[in-house]
Amino acid sequence: MQTLLKHFQITDSFWTRYEHLIKETVIPYQEKALHDQIPNAEKSHAIANFQAAAEYLKTGIKPTDFYGMVFQDSDVAKWLEAVSYTLVLFPDAELEARADEIIELVGSAQQADGYLDTYFTLNDDKAHFSNLHEAHELYCAGHMMEAAVAYYESTGKRSLLDIMLRVTDCIYEHFITQKAEGYPGHPEVELALMRMYQASHEQKCLALAEHFINIRGIDPHFYEKERKKIDWTVWNNDPTNYEYEQNYAPVREQDRATGHAVRAVYLYTGMAMLAQETKDSALLDACKRLWNSITEEQMYVTGGIGSTCLGEAFTTAYHLPNDTAYAETCASIGLIFFARRMLELDMDSRYTNVMERALYNCVLAGMQLNGTRFFYVNPLEVEPGVSGIIPTHKHTLPERPMWFGCACCPPNVARLLSSIAEYAWSETDDTLYSHLYLAGDLRLEQKKATIHVETEYPYHGTIKYKIEPADSSAEFTLAIRIPDWSSHTDVRINDVPIFKGNHLYDANKTNVYADIKYHQGYLYIHRSFLKDDEIEVNMDMTPYRIYANAKISADSGRVAVARGPLVYCAEGVDNDDDVFSLHADPYSAIDVTHYDANILHGVVRMELNGYRIQNMKSLYSLSRPERTACRIKLIPYYAWGNRGLNQMRVWLPESSES
Amino acid sequence: MQTLLKHFQITDSFWTRYEHLIKETVIPYQEKALHDQIPNAEKSHAIANFQAAAEYLKTGIKPTDFYGMVFQDSDVAKWLEAVSYTLVLFPDAELEARADEIIELVGSAQQADGYLDTYFTLNDDKAHFSNLHEAHELYCAGHMMEAAVAYYESTGKRSLLDIMLRVTDCIYEHFITQKAEGYPGHPEVELALMRMYQASHEQKCLALAEHFINIRGIDPHFYEKERKKIDWTVWNNDPTNYEYEQNYAPVREQDRATGHAVRAVYLYTGMAMLAQETKDSALLDACKRLWNSITEEQMYVTGGIGSTCLGEAFTTAYHLPNDTAYAETCASIGLIFFARRMLELDMDSRYTNVMERALYNCVLAGMQLNGTRFFYVNPLEVEPGVSGIIPTHKHTLPERPMWFGCACCPPNVARLLSSIAEYAWSETDDTLYSHLYLAGDLRLEQKKATIHVETEYPYHGTIKYKIEPADSSAEFTLAIRIPDWSSHTDVRINDVPIFKGNHLYDANKTNVYADIKYHQGYLYIHRSFLKDDEIEVNMDMTPYRIYANAKISADSGRVAVARGPLVYCAEGVDNDDDVFSLHADPYSAIDVTHYDANILHGVVRMELNGYRIQNMKSLYSLSRPERTACRIKLIPYYAWGNRGLNQMRVWLPESSES
Repeated sequence: MQTLLKHFQITDSFWTRYEHLIKETVIPYQEKALHDQIPNAEKSHAIANFQAAAEYLKTGIKPTDFYGMVFQDSDVAKWLEAVSYTLVLFPDAELEARADEIIELVGSAQQADGYLDTYFTLNDDKAHFSNLHEAHELYCAGHMMEAAVAYYESTGKRSLLDIMLRVTDCIYEHFITQKAEGYPGHPEVELALMRMYQASHEQKCLALAEHFINIRGIDPHFYEKERKKIDWTVWNNDPTNYEYEQNYAPVREQDRATGHAVRAVYLYTGMAMLAQETKDSALLDACKRLWNSITEEQMYVTGGIGSTCLGEAFTTAYHLPNDTAYAETCASIGLIFFARRMLELDMDSRYTNVMERALYNCVLAGMQLNGTRFFYVNPLEVEPGVSGIIPTHKHTLPERPMWFGCACCPPNVARLLSSIAEYAWSETDDTLYSHLYLAGDLRLEQKKATIHVETEYPYHGTIKYKIEPADSSAEFTLAIRIPDWSSHTDVRINDVPIFKGNHLYDANKTNVYADIKYHQGYLYIHRSFLKDDEIEVNMDMTPYRIYANAKISADSGRVAVARGPLVYCAEGVDNDDDVFSLHADPYSAIDVTHYDANILHGVVRMELNGYRIQNMKSLYSLSRPERTACRIKLIPYYAWGNRGLNQMRVWLPESSES
Repeated sequence: MQTLLKHFQITDSFWTRYEHLIKETVIPYQEKALHDQIPNAEKSHAIANFQAAAEYLKTGIKPTDFYGMVFQDSDVAKWLEAVSYTLVLFPDAELEARADEIIELVGSAQQADGYLDTYFTLNDDKAHFSNLHEAHELYCAGHMMEAAVAYYESTGKRSLLDIMLRVTDCIYEHFITQKAEGYPGHPEVELALMRMYQASHEQKCLALAEHFINIRGIDPHFYEKERKKIDWTVWNNDPTNYEYEQNYAPVREQDRATGHAVRAVYLYTGMAMLAQETKDSALLDACKRLWNSITEEQMYVTGGIGSTCLGEAFTTAYHLPNDTAYAETCASIGLIFFARRMLELDMDSRYTNVMERALYNCVLAGMQLNGTRFFYVNPLEVEPGVSGIIPTHKHTLPERPMWFGCACCPPNVARLLSSIAEYAWSETDDTLYSHLYLAGDLRLEQKKATIHVETEYPYHGTIKYKIEPADSSAEFTLAIRIPDWSSHTDVRINDVPIFKGNHLYDANKTNVYADIKYHQGYLYIHRSFLKDDEIEVNMDMTPYRIYANAKISADSGRVAVARGPLVYCAEGVDNDDDVFSLHADPYSAIDVTHYDANILHGVVRMELNGYRIQNMKSLYSLSRPERTACRIKLIPYYAWGNRGLNQMRVWLPESSES
């Protein structure tokens, strides 16, 4: 697979807005935050930690102590990674110069043996790699490796890549040459090493990724033994919580997605990358089981994962409470990473459908529409006065806060959205895959063609792919995902139907000079494309209802409403400040408003008939409360929480009578 | 008000079974537990602590260290209190002799200045009353005072009462004479001192109760100051959590029931007792506000209170999650105490209706039907695999465990159920109040009559009061509560209707030689009762549906089903092991089975029509899942969890169509 980030110019209004937001708001804000230049915000000290470590290495004098979370370095890494992608979209010599300067600083904080981690450098009474369980050195290294690969691929500059290859040498020396025991508490370095390997072809990267994946869970008691050897802990995490750490079994034997959700999906992403590289079918099978465990048993309808704030973790199959959900933004981002890598192993739209669900719902909801505030936690129901306040709901904030002491989600959103083209497209020697639907121009070097995509997705369901061969024709396969939510998708080539409903359209009778097949949710069109060839996809944008499996007790008797890839929700501000007394009529038509660019930065809203349970004074009543017919007004879930403190509910009770 | 415990002989099958259970199973089991004679059970050491303290005071040598919770002494006190009531019901010289022995032991653990608390006696590096916030000395003293009053009133023996009057002297010396600052972290001593005062007429008891109530919350920072003076804590509780400790304001200014639910209702009970004694209208007003805050905003339909396990506490108005409820058995017992004392201040059935709801649902559910296992926590929905297992649901056990390290609930159930007559009846000079409906014979000394009550309540709605005057007639008022759940209650005197529907029946035309009025839910019948006079009450035992206020988001679109005072629930064992896919038909008749003495120790079960949502393989579906008509089978909530590991749900989604 080749990355297409550098070859795709986004033009649609939906994504262009996001790319500008990342470039103009998120990246500058985060840059200031890393430099502690935001008045009244919680101090980051992330750049200062690197400065202090560099100074200490040079002079033996610490200008300041380390400050922040043990993984503070990773904030700098994620920012550098987002900057890398943004420089592709919006070349900016000044920003690039500032990134170079930070990379130079990172390099000057590297020790002679290649070791790089400001927490340990500034706390040099603590031995390197002595607390793999909690101290996140390999996690921070992983994020800086990802930044290194991104910066190298975007700018061609090897500076950070070379730094991180020296870090790889250092890790290799410790774990492979010196045979040190152990594996990372927070997986991340596995997938990062695989990216390093793909970018640098350095065998040590592959060997290390394979090592960490292979030994995980072989000795589930490693963290207990480690704890006994040291006299400090970071969080006093329980070293016997094997499910939390995904070390309850060797990874090839795991069959349940467990524990800290971000750690889980980062691990599984690394496993999928390794499985692809090594053609390891046992590892692939484990990845498929873990994928199913998440998406068939433990995923919110928004693509959120992690049902409990306690450990930011998975709980158990079908336990998906709406008001106490954790559904961390980073976990859904990790799920998208996992989906992307599974696609490379097994081109099946089951992965892409989940990727799209997580992206357009949970992940986008993680950021305020103006790019200045972020949710860690993405509940499916909030109630001011309860959410964010009472002890069991402290984590489900009803409004996005500014910046976090633990600032993992904002830069993670930035790096994902600024590289969205990598998820929208992928390419093999003979096939171009269209996974997500973004308008823009895609230049295909090897296939010698440009594809011009027109769409107003996600609010309109028409996608037009216009092909411009560089020569008189260009022969290749264009594979287009047919989304699972569209009950009826039509595809035409040059106005000739080739796919109708959800089946190939009488292909024998249609002479389109193309070889067409439909496999695992993708429509494959092989043709010698000619100038002005146009493939038009029309999805069914009729709003639809979603019902949950009856085993999800929190959703019993409830319905969610959606359109296209977007799950909708009811907010108090549109519904007389009371969404909890609303019941949806199961037989009502769902009416769609015109797209309004002035509301919530551009949305289509929806309305349906329902009933409002009349308020009673008492807590309980023996008579059925009066119901009055009403209209229930819905907005896309990703746009919730942008109009002040407000009730919100995704799953509405259904009731057919007044 | 006079206590009628000694004058009422229970005869009905429902309560007789419970009284025998307490006498024959619960008290012997708990006695063995206190003596550490139960194999494989968690050690209590409660008696051993008293023995060790006594030995230490006598010889200066500690035979053992203190073991158990800081409030371990209170288990002995609650057992003695339950024994006191049981001795009235079932005189038993051997049991009484064993109680006398334990009382003697308690006395021998008392210090020269009257101080009594084995935790502090055995940990004599800790100063008495130095950690009021957490160390529960006054709580333990309160429970032993309650036992002392009960034992004195039941047996006439002053032994424990005298011990506890010396304890009172010691507390008085410290807090009143020496003017020590502070008030109890866990309220209890206030209500106990009021009982001591009523039994002994010792003014110091009243003065101390008044003192502790009056200073609470005057200085909300007391616990913070206290913490700074000592170098130890019990649980490291947060001394600035003013809501948790009910010290967020002086008690007369409080308007929200907050914090630890048991502490709250014990405090409010003491406040109500003091308000009655001192005719303090500001305190009465506060009690009414706090009562309303609980029962109009924060009470489960089962009479459970305390919505979160975090602090075993109230959360906020209308936040009543079913699957993560705390609803501690002890908290509902405390609510019954509070109701009883409010009735003495304000004879209104609003208190009695709640008392009955809490008793017949949450409290009875706290004990296994065979008396050997107990719930602390009484959720309204359990799901094996989730409840008791996942991190947020560790507290909502789906089956009752044997005995607890913190054993507060089992003896609390025992003392309440063994004194149930005190709640069923109360008496003033001219009026006898019938609050709860128990069959039996009540001897009225001053009113010179016996009342013979016949009923098969709670499964039948007919109550017959037969009056037998000692002389030719007996003139007094019999006041009978008309329950709020009965939509139509008829009352007749000697077959002449006096109350019909829910109103007085054409009283002018009916010559029954009685003065009849209906006030605040009580029907007052004043008459010179003659031999064989019979008052017959017929309640409407038609099953009924309960709807929750629309502000309770957890109950949106759901219904609970009840009959008489009993709330019903669906258990998996009766419903094909799956209650979460059931929807109740809102228009179905609710069918009632015959009373079956062989099932769950005697219950009436119910059935109604509903729909079962067919299982789907996927987590979500875009088509409405198939529904098949089915019967939903219900049992009384108090009897749930008696047939193995099992799903359970009180609030069922409602749906009118297949």
